Amino acid sequence: MATNDVVSVSHSMLLKATDLKDDRIDVISICLFVFLLCACIVLGHLLEENRWMNESITALLLGLFTGSIVLISSKGQGSHILEFDEELFFIYLLPPIIFNAGFQVKKKEFFRNFITIMFFGVIGVFISFGIISTGSWYFFSKFGLKNLPIRDILAIGVIFSATDSVCTLQVLNQDETPLLYSLVFGEGVVNDATSVVLFRAVQTYNFDNFTSLEGLQIGGSFLYLFFSSCILGIASGLISAYIIKTMYFGRHSTDREIAIMTLMAYLSYVFAELFYLSGILSVFFCGIVMSHYTWHNVTENSRITSKHSFATMSFIAETFIFLYVGMDALDFEKWKMMQSSFTESAGLFGSLLFLVLLGRAAFVFPLSALSNYSTKSPDAKINLRQMVIIWWAGLMRGAVSIALAFNQGGDAKDSNQATLMVITIIIVLFSTIVFGTATKPLISWLLPPHFRSNYSDSASLSPKASLDADFHIPLLMDTEREELEANDRSTINQILNGLPRPQSIGMLLTAPRSTIHHVWRKFDDSYMRPTFGGRGYVRLVSRRDMDIQEDEILEDHS
Amino acid sequence: MATNDVVSVSHSMLLKATDLKDDRIDVISICLFVFLLCACIVLGHLLEENRWMNESITALLLGLFTGSIVLISSKGQGSHILEFDEELFFIYLLPPIIFNAGFQVKKKEFFRNFITIMFFGVIGVFISFGIISTGSWYFFSKFGLKNLPIRDILAIGVIFSATDSVCTLQVLNQDETPLLYSLVFGEGVVNDATSVVLFRAVQTYNFDNFTSLEGLQIGGSFLYLFFSSCILGIASGLISAYIIKTMYFGRHSTDREIAIMTLMAYLSYVFAELFYLSGILSVFFCGIVMSHYTWHNVTENSRITSKHSFATMSFIAETFIFLYVGMDALDFEKWKMMQSSFTESAGLFGSLLFLVLLGRAAFVFPLSALSNYSTKSPDAKINLRQMVIIWWAGLMRGAVSIALAFNQGGDAKDSNQATLMVITIIIVLFSTIVFGTATKPLISWLLPPHFRSNYSDSASLSPKASLDADFHIPLLMDTEREELEANDRSTINQILNGLPRPQSIGMLLTAPRSTIHHVWRKFDDSYMRPTFGGRGYVRLVSRRDMDIQEDEILEDHS
Repeated sequence: MATNDVVSVSHSMLLKATDLKDDRIDVISICLFVFLLCACIVLGHLLEENRWMNESITALLLGLFTGSIVLISSKGQGSHILEFDEELFFIYLLPPIIFNAGFQVKKKEFFRNFITIMFFGVIGVFISFGIISTGSWYFFSKFGLKNLPIRDILAIGVIFSATDSVCTLQVLNQDETPLLYSLVFGEGVVNDATSVVLFRAVQTYNFDNFTSLEGLQIGGSFLYLFFSSCILGIASGLISAYIIKTMYFGRHSTDREIAIMTLMAYLSYVFAELFYLSGILSVFFCGIVMSHYTWHNVTENSRITSKHSFATMSFIAETFIFLYVGMDALDFEKWKMMQSSFTESAGLFGSLLFLVLLGRAAFVFPLSALSNYSTKSPDAKINLRQMVIIWWAGLMRGAVSIALAFNQGGDAKDSNQATLMVITIIIVLFSTIVFGTATKPLISWLLPPHFRSNYSDSASLSPKASLDADFHIPLLMDTEREELEANDRSTINQILNGLPRPQSIGMLLTAPRSTIHHVWRKFDDSYMRPTFGGRGYVRLVSRRDMDIQEDEILEDHS
Repeated sequence: MATNDVVSVSHSMLLKATDLKDDRIDVISICLFVFLLCACIVLGHLLEENRWMNESITALLLGLFTGSIVLISSKGQGSHILEFDEELFFIYLLPPIIFNAGFQVKKKEFFRNFITIMFFGVIGVFISFGIISTGSWYFFSKFGLKNLPIRDILAIGVIFSATDSVCTLQVLNQDETPLLYSLVFGEGVVNDATSVVLFRAVQTYNFDNFTSLEGLQIGGSFLYLFFSSCILGIASGLISAYIIKTMYFGRHSTDREIAIMTLMAYLSYVFAELFYLSGILSVFFCGIVMSHYTWHNVTENSRITSKHSFATMSFIAETFIFLYVGMDALDFEKWKMMQSSFTESAGLFGSLLFLVLLGRAAFVFPLSALSNYSTKSPDAKINLRQMVIIWWAGLMRGAVSIALAFNQGGDAKDSNQATLMVITIIIVLFSTIVFGTATKPLISWLLPPHFRSNYSDSASLSPKASLDADFHIPLLMDTEREELEANDRSTINQILNGLPRPQSIGMLLTAPRSTIHHVWRKFDDSYMRPTFGGRGYVRLVSRRDMDIQEDEILEDHS
């Protein structure tokens, strides 16, 4: 019997046998996506020297390219591969990205700018929402979109006020521009909670006779959502720290420690979603708490592993999202249903883009000025160049906008809805590719490297020193080193600011932020760290030590 | 406005808003499963000292317990949470487990026993299949299952010949009993390929007039499946090694290295599934190749991270599977459709259990004797106590059996099919809990620790030394150490075996296994390692070194 026969016979036999399964199409799309992810990583690596490209744009373009091939090979029918799956995005891809961001964020920088971040993330979204909604109501009827219900107009306001935190992570570098990174990324995270509340409000309330009571309700539900999400995230972070500290998993296995950390973080996200809260806020705070307590309670191997494996998960999810958005853009079912002419579409696109630019400018500049006015520390002041970058880096609209737009009108067979979907996709592609590409060159033009080191005390650590710190494997030794550095930095700060370290409640008036930090440090040292562990609080017994101890015990017994 | 009002208003508002989504039930089950996984890890840790329990049994019991609560709270209706999802199992849970097993397997031990493993995994399955099928045909008509088509009888033979490699990993310890582990686990992996071929053959051919030509076809398709799966796995492992060696990702980021390794491994699995091959075989060999080449090409941080994160993924997936099988057992839809009386069911259960015990005994003892006869080395001889353990440790039937049974009769509304499903579930639960619980005590009874050290040269490494090796962080230093140990071991071997190291093709007749090993080592050193990297072949430039170099370059330029 010839080999060929065997192959063809077995193949046809197998084909018949698996006709039973309907998950065939899934296997094909998984293959395609995993292959494309590998290709993205390799291509991204090859293009790394290129100043215009970054990994997300590579992924987006590769997605567009593959999408067109799928479209051509399926003769314009598209396929279910090209449909956007909200669940995939919100349940599986977003959590690792936001968790990793919380886990790796420079906590000091983040909390120092907390008030400014809240300004941007809450008040900013309301301002942007107001401008984009009003503008859309004014422009849209001129470009063929007549009789849009007020609900859709307001939904557009929310959809285009949601900045893309994933994209921000790609274009801003935490080590190079820590202040900008913490502001723009922090805003992106808080912004999510605001958008979710606003979007739900838009879908629920009757805006034809909107009362001030309902306005209060929206405010109340924002506060509820914000605080419950934060508390949920912080609680699950603390529980994981407590479990690992008291049960001391590391003694038996690193795998269990990593598993507990990963699962508890994910639990905080899905629990938040279960109770209709903001999973993004929750998992972000969980990440912060875990890096402050839990991470210091685990073994050295677990520290290295957790740091890199969370980053890897996040990296894969990010790349996947951009690939996916690129491919999804070619879901031509929507494009066909759109009835606007080319001029009308161009008008809609142009006016929306203008509104996005305007809406963001309308809060970034005034709120930055307000923040400068309220702070005394020259470190935390935002100058004009930085304001421009904050404005620009938050212009990208991403998968969150697409997901919201899909939620609003994805299933509808209405041509207006289809037009909105298509416009959203175009804005996302355009803003990611054009604004994204221009951000890196813009930053190096506005903030040349010698300029940056003045902006934040963290930047006073030379890049080489921070690389060294990264490379340092025996992390236990980092403890002393970091403590030393922290002292150095605060001394520098005191000299720079000409302020003594605040020691009493009276200081609160002159330097509110550092006083809060000081009170927190005291509370942390006296109550939190003894309970939940943290830097220097858990004595790590290495396996070798334990072995020696066990041997000694055995010898004693014999 | 009272807080309560806000909460209730916002809650009802949110409820309405998310009525749009139908992925609600998914969020609930994800929450439940993630929570249960955390509980399993904590409980498993607390019960670790208990000699009867292991993590899989804890998970299984917790699953059964939760399943009953779901069942009671949904008033006997069950819910979609309790239905077994083949795709989840085969596409997401199995690959990380098998990949990790390949990645961490002791390669030397595995390949030394390769012929015996193939005996067990191929001929053994055919023997067991024959006995269980014949026995079922004889017994089943006596216990109320009349008029079963021959196809179902044969399917039962395959379903109950598929051993559970996941369970084996839990009850046997690679460091304590390396020979047994490699035999039983290796058999489980090869066994999968055989079962898949047999199962497809059973579903495809007409067995009322079965010709010898068709027998040849089955043999041919087994060979095709086996070799193409292996080649696919080896190829993707080598590609990953080559990419990482030539492009040197580690210079830029550990995350990319881990991402490429993970994605390429998964790609080998889904590609195999796409082409109707055995993904299990493929990803297993990919794991072996990656640990031999790729792992040595990456940075130190990547090595630690990959080792632990693959183990963690595998650990989570294993725990999840047992939890899931436990919960699935209570899918009462099937139980209700079963029309057999209690005596009949007990008879079916008893006879099947007997056949499983008999079917395995019928190949383990004769084939072990055959293997002893063919080998000269006293190390590789299997004594009677070890045969008993091999027989016993492979008796567990697990999720693979359930998945196959589901594939065969899961959708049918026939009462015979329902009976078979229920019997499969009972056998899986019984064998996992009873046989699984008894394995650890059986091993310590049959093979007391002082007995074990004679069985394999790897065991001559004291447990302390291997713990030390595990703890050793600067993995670069391991290179020399391991090379030294390898030399030590082969010297010990030579003394033990009284054989000189085979140097020529003439040796092939007297000591075939070591000659093959020697030829392979030469080929590996001269062709494979220079191309694909491997131990000692890639000079790792640490980031600190690179920095110094870059500084020097900068200084030269200025």
